[in-house]
Amino acid sequence: MQNNLLSESLFSLSNGYIGIRGSCEEGLEGNACRSIEGIYLNGFYESVPIPHAERGYGYALNTQTMLNVTNSKIIELYLGKERFSLLSGKVLQFKRTLDMEKGYLLRELIWRSPQGKEIKITVKRLVSLTQRHLMAFQYQVEPLNFSGNISILSSLDGAVDNHMHEEEDPRFSASLGDLGLVVTGILPDDTRAVMIQETLRSKQVLACAMENCLTEGSSFAIDNEQTGESATVSFQVNGQVNGKITLEKFVAYYTSRDYPVDDLPELAAGMVEKARLTGFQALFEDQNEYCRQFWANSGIAVEGNLQAEQGLRFSLFHLMQAAGCDGQTGIPAKGLSSEGYDGHYFWDTEIYMVPVFAALFPEEARKLLEFRFYILDHARSRARELSHKKGALFPWRTIAGEEGSSYFPAGTAQYHINAAIAYAINKYIEMTDDYSFMLDYGAEILFETARLWEDLGDYIPNKDNKFCYNEVTGPDEYTALVSNNCYTNYMARWHLQYAYETALLLEKKYPATYRRIADKLYLQQEELEAWRLAAENTYIPYDQKLKVHPQDDSFFDKAIWDFSTTPADNYPLMLHYHPLVIYRYQVCKQSDTILAQLLLGDHFSLDQKRRDYDYYEPITTHDSSLSPSIFSIIASEIGYPEDAYRFFAMSVRLDLENILKDTHYGLHLANMAGSWLCVVQGFAGMRTNGGGLKFNPYCPQYWQGYRFRIIYKGSRLEIAVELNKVTYKLLAGDNISFMHKGQKVTLARGKQAEYKLI
Amino acid sequence: MQNNLLSESLFSLSNGYIGIRGSCEEGLEGNACRSIEGIYLNGFYESVPIPHAERGYGYALNTQTMLNVTNSKIIELYLGKERFSLLSGKVLQFKRTLDMEKGYLLRELIWRSPQGKEIKITVKRLVSLTQRHLMAFQYQVEPLNFSGNISILSSLDGAVDNHMHEEEDPRFSASLGDLGLVVTGILPDDTRAVMIQETLRSKQVLACAMENCLTEGSSFAIDNEQTGESATVSFQVNGQVNGKITLEKFVAYYTSRDYPVDDLPELAAGMVEKARLTGFQALFEDQNEYCRQFWANSGIAVEGNLQAEQGLRFSLFHLMQAAGCDGQTGIPAKGLSSEGYDGHYFWDTEIYMVPVFAALFPEEARKLLEFRFYILDHARSRARELSHKKGALFPWRTIAGEEGSSYFPAGTAQYHINAAIAYAINKYIEMTDDYSFMLDYGAEILFETARLWEDLGDYIPNKDNKFCYNEVTGPDEYTALVSNNCYTNYMARWHLQYAYETALLLEKKYPATYRRIADKLYLQQEELEAWRLAAENTYIPYDQKLKVHPQDDSFFDKAIWDFSTTPADNYPLMLHYHPLVIYRYQVCKQSDTILAQLLLGDHFSLDQKRRDYDYYEPITTHDSSLSPSIFSIIASEIGYPEDAYRFFAMSVRLDLENILKDTHYGLHLANMAGSWLCVVQGFAGMRTNGGGLKFNPYCPQYWQGYRFRIIYKGSRLEIAVELNKVTYKLLAGDNISFMHKGQKVTLARGKQAEYKLI
Repeated sequence: MQNNLLSESLFSLSNGYIGIRGSCEEGLEGNACRSIEGIYLNGFYESVPIPHAERGYGYALNTQTMLNVTNSKIIELYLGKERFSLLSGKVLQFKRTLDMEKGYLLRELIWRSPQGKEIKITVKRLVSLTQRHLMAFQYQVEPLNFSGNISILSSLDGAVDNHMHEEEDPRFSASLGDLGLVVTGILPDDTRAVMIQETLRSKQVLACAMENCLTEGSSFAIDNEQTGESATVSFQVNGQVNGKITLEKFVAYYTSRDYPVDDLPELAAGMVEKARLTGFQALFEDQNEYCRQFWANSGIAVEGNLQAEQGLRFSLFHLMQAAGCDGQTGIPAKGLSSEGYDGHYFWDTEIYMVPVFAALFPEEARKLLEFRFYILDHARSRARELSHKKGALFPWRTIAGEEGSSYFPAGTAQYHINAAIAYAINKYIEMTDDYSFMLDYGAEILFETARLWEDLGDYIPNKDNKFCYNEVTGPDEYTALVSNNCYTNYMARWHLQYAYETALLLEKKYPATYRRIADKLYLQQEELEAWRLAAENTYIPYDQKLKVHPQDDSFFDKAIWDFSTTPADNYPLMLHYHPLVIYRYQVCKQSDTILAQLLLGDHFSLDQKRRDYDYYEPITTHDSSLSPSIFSIIASEIGYPEDAYRFFAMSVRLDLENILKDTHYGLHLANMAGSWLCVVQGFAGMRTNGGGLKFNPYCPQYWQGYRFRIIYKGSRLEIAVELNKVTYKLLAGDNISFMHKGQKVTLARGKQAEYKLI
Repeated sequence: MQNNLLSESLFSLSNGYIGIRGSCEEGLEGNACRSIEGIYLNGFYESVPIPHAERGYGYALNTQTMLNVTNSKIIELYLGKERFSLLSGKVLQFKRTLDMEKGYLLRELIWRSPQGKEIKITVKRLVSLTQRHLMAFQYQVEPLNFSGNISILSSLDGAVDNHMHEEEDPRFSASLGDLGLVVTGILPDDTRAVMIQETLRSKQVLACAMENCLTEGSSFAIDNEQTGESATVSFQVNGQVNGKITLEKFVAYYTSRDYPVDDLPELAAGMVEKARLTGFQALFEDQNEYCRQFWANSGIAVEGNLQAEQGLRFSLFHLMQAAGCDGQTGIPAKGLSSEGYDGHYFWDTEIYMVPVFAALFPEEARKLLEFRFYILDHARSRARELSHKKGALFPWRTIAGEEGSSYFPAGTAQYHINAAIAYAINKYIEMTDDYSFMLDYGAEILFETARLWEDLGDYIPNKDNKFCYNEVTGPDEYTALVSNNCYTNYMARWHLQYAYETALLLEKKYPATYRRIADKLYLQQEELEAWRLAAENTYIPYDQKLKVHPQDDSFFDKAIWDFSTTPADNYPLMLHYHPLVIYRYQVCKQSDTILAQLLLGDHFSLDQKRRDYDYYEPITTHDSSLSPSIFSIIASEIGYPEDAYRFFAMSVRLDLENILKDTHYGLHLANMAGSWLCVVQGFAGMRTNGGGLKFNPYCPQYWQGYRFRIIYKGSRLEIAVELNKVTYKLLAGDNISFMHKGQKVTLARGKQAEYKLI
């Protein structure tokens, strides 16, 4: 049944606020392994004490867990006394379709009951992309060979719990005990019901409302019944052969994160009432239109490879779905497709997803960065807990802002998250020139995170008085607690320099606002100079003999992992070896030095990139989904098109083909962003480093061509690459200039330019 | 009231099997902070699942916790209706004496009740050093100004729990939830009662019996009452002014670790019955004789400094008390004086305590090493869990043999525990020539632990193909997960060499036995050669510029901790800084490189020792009690007598003056051993490295002299040092030879030799 768990992830729907796994309305009773039913609200969490068998000063004491909330999708069907279930009778036809073009999930099936009744069931489900609190279901049945009583029961069930914390897999589990989301009230009203639930510790409240409406067929009895933890509206219908019966169900969630507790029931009830009046079809068309616009804006297409095109569109669809756009939430590592990683936000949002949004959907990029401002005070407090006199240290994993990482060597020690956030700010600014964001939010984040580097590092006599960062963990979690992680040092250097330059720029262009920010932060000129000096003097580990960057000071002093005797079943290594074993060897879970070479591409020569790639590629297991896309992009850049395509193929089908064997635990959102980056930054060679847009495109030999669109400083550009030419076309907005293979191109609106590719 | 908690630790009694804190028989009702009542049985534990909020492969899943068992010391006193309590009325006189000469605890007090009755109470308590299952109390009261009814209630209370896991201090706490030790039966019989208790998870059973006997004064009523969790025998006496009333109470514990469950009640009852017939006085004299012999054997004395003498005797007394001598238990870090560190056995037994026992009490040294053999199969399994194809890895902390360390960077990563065990075997053999131990137990431990080093290390091209140990943690826990920890590499090198030489020796001298061992372990000649090669080629970190050993590869690349701005209240650092902060700097909790220089003194020149000491002394906080004694010994050796005395003074009064402010959580047994080593290895310069006994004595200038005795290969030698001379006297046994300051001395029994000291 893992296959069903996988499908539930792939068929999950979301609008960045509500997420629902693709489990069936009727449920799959029995063994929990058959189905991980889940509905999640971004930012709605329970606080959970972290158990530490051996405590330490400054350890994170509480974590937050995204909750599986009121199960509102339940629709049960009875043919007389026979309950419809996929596990009984005979399924004659079955098909589920995730319609990415129109933005909904379709399920069509024909079932023969144990007593021989045949019925056709057609279910449409959508999570509204225009009204964040709303979901809608259209549940249609058609008796094929009988007439008689049919009951349809639509429920809200408050007896929900999380599943993942029971799992043994270290990537997804935490033995956190009971997560209490208790039902505190049920308000029934005709075909409607509102359920109120409250968390035990975080004291968050939600109201979930459903409205049910029979739009085809007529009921001879309607009931609204409640138990302590559920509410059910049932419709009794006299079914006729080939007579369609259609139930429309509308569900809304409101929580105390956004509204006063007392208003929640009314808000939820009002929303479903309004939705009923609107009707499913109108909501459906609204959804279609939103998606039409989205696909028009992204314009992604591949000629000559349906699998790749499907994968890319699947990636973008889920990314679009994950966009919350409220400035108070991020994107969980698994989106809202499961409870994996407790629904926590990590650095991958900034490094992988923000660059995609900045190019496709800049409002969402901005909102994601505003979220970091929203939790900046928590990051300041965390820095103090770690004895930093100044600055902010963002939590490695969090929902509400507090550090939720219980194993600090692969958690809090990943100081590089600070640079990731600065980097995303920079990418956003490069794509949008949105200095209002910088003045209102960005600069304060940037300066507070830069400060931390200066407090963290030291001028080390033994290293020629270079500025060093000791006892940190880089992105590659197969080593931990190292000195001078190459990625970290490069990123910190860039971060300090960027903060310094931004301060100078703002002081010059926006002196009053800059003064206000500087005053608020007690930021003096001499501190800026200290940043500049620390950046200038940053130690960069380099092996003169190999002419390769070691991943950290100790990396090349370790033996290389013995891949030849490692059974294929022993991957991912972290599930088969103690960290002490893995840490002892040269073996990488994911791109680390290679990632620096992408993010700070202008700091490395092409030869250097090639040498580093040649060194790290053979010792990287890609046990992290964050890895293949980065290797693909760099492989494109250094002229290794076969590697580039191999890693792209892994990335673009990673969830669809369950390559990491864990997609049943949720989608890999950052990798989905990575797939798009493989095309845009890899095959098309798009870069914005240091300002200015550049392309260096080629077409993978397995394709006839590909195209995509981006929005750059308000103008929409289409890039269409074929095997032997590229066409740039300015679809909308002001004239723009960019570089094609080092050659300056300027385009006016509606114009295009074409270049030969050899 | 921390003062009382401290006293309870200092006044704790033990025989290595039963331990009882020095809390009063009558208890201190109310606030738990007033008293940590505790009675412990060495090796009797509950299994406790370790919570890991983020799990990892091979993490320790269960730990063991030494349990606070049946509270059997309770004796309550009523004067009419007034209950005697130290917290009410007025205490007119109060004195507690730990009589180390005779081996018992004495409490004498005069109390005036709220109603004005005055009474003298005298309590003697002993934990039998000759009968491991037995404790005895003599509780005497004498009305001073009244006659009237006096009740004495003697109880067993089964409603016990551990205290420490509620504490916040990371050194002592684990949030382990309920420890279930449930009462499963109470068998009353006249003035006797037996209570049976069972653990929930480890399924261990104990029987605790008490027998009560009024030996002075006569009771007009005796009752024996039980509740579900307690049994109480009460005596009603007509008290007369100045008429003594004496209760003798005998307590015995038997557990399923040693005997069949069904036999336990009878064994315990039989033991207390026998004790009653023997009577307290005879047990008391027995105890006195045992102690007389012990003190005669140790012969420790200081002339001109009572504080030092008291401290040394206090240390030896508690060490003697901690000796379990059963080969199936070790000595917990805090002895049996509290629940600190969950009653776990660590490496400090081997490095600090075994050398003392080997010189004073060799049978106990042997039994401690036999314990390691007893858990060798667990160590083999643990090695497999860590992917070592061969060998054994001893748990960093354990009771029953399984790894109980939940934070592996300062737990399992301390591979050096393997070398500590090998080292202790070597010390024991050097002092005793007991090759029967080596053949029956030692060799197998030695070979299995040596194998692990060879599997752990690698020949590293980047380090001239030297044999390196990466990702280990040395004794100093203020750094973790480092490469080539100097201590570890030195010890591993020695260990491999010693194992190699021992194998050759045994093969030559005991070929049949050696063959049997080698066959059992699949040990081939080529593996021995691999050990020799790895030892020969072991990488030793060394800084050519400073001519100092770095603690590990990265140590000198870190900034030195800023001691000048660290407030005095911020020590110990681990209670005030996150590990990431501490790990980032050159700062040591304890001796690490310096410890290698003591243990392997012949591998370092005197100049080298001096340079290393000069480097590490200023950056060591001695936040660990294991530190000062080692610095003292090395300071003695390198001619820094003031440092030597300063550190000795810290060590010898560490618990008595609560220098680390945590003695209320239990005594520091390894430091107690260290105090004696300060004198014997430090001031008297005793060494056995490489075979042969050597002395290089001096007398601290603050003293007139000191003396001590050791047993060397069966012969008892007394060493008496004065400011200007030393006298060696062979008290018993065969002729022995040793070196005095490089000069060979041979003594016959009863003879002495005297040398001038300048």
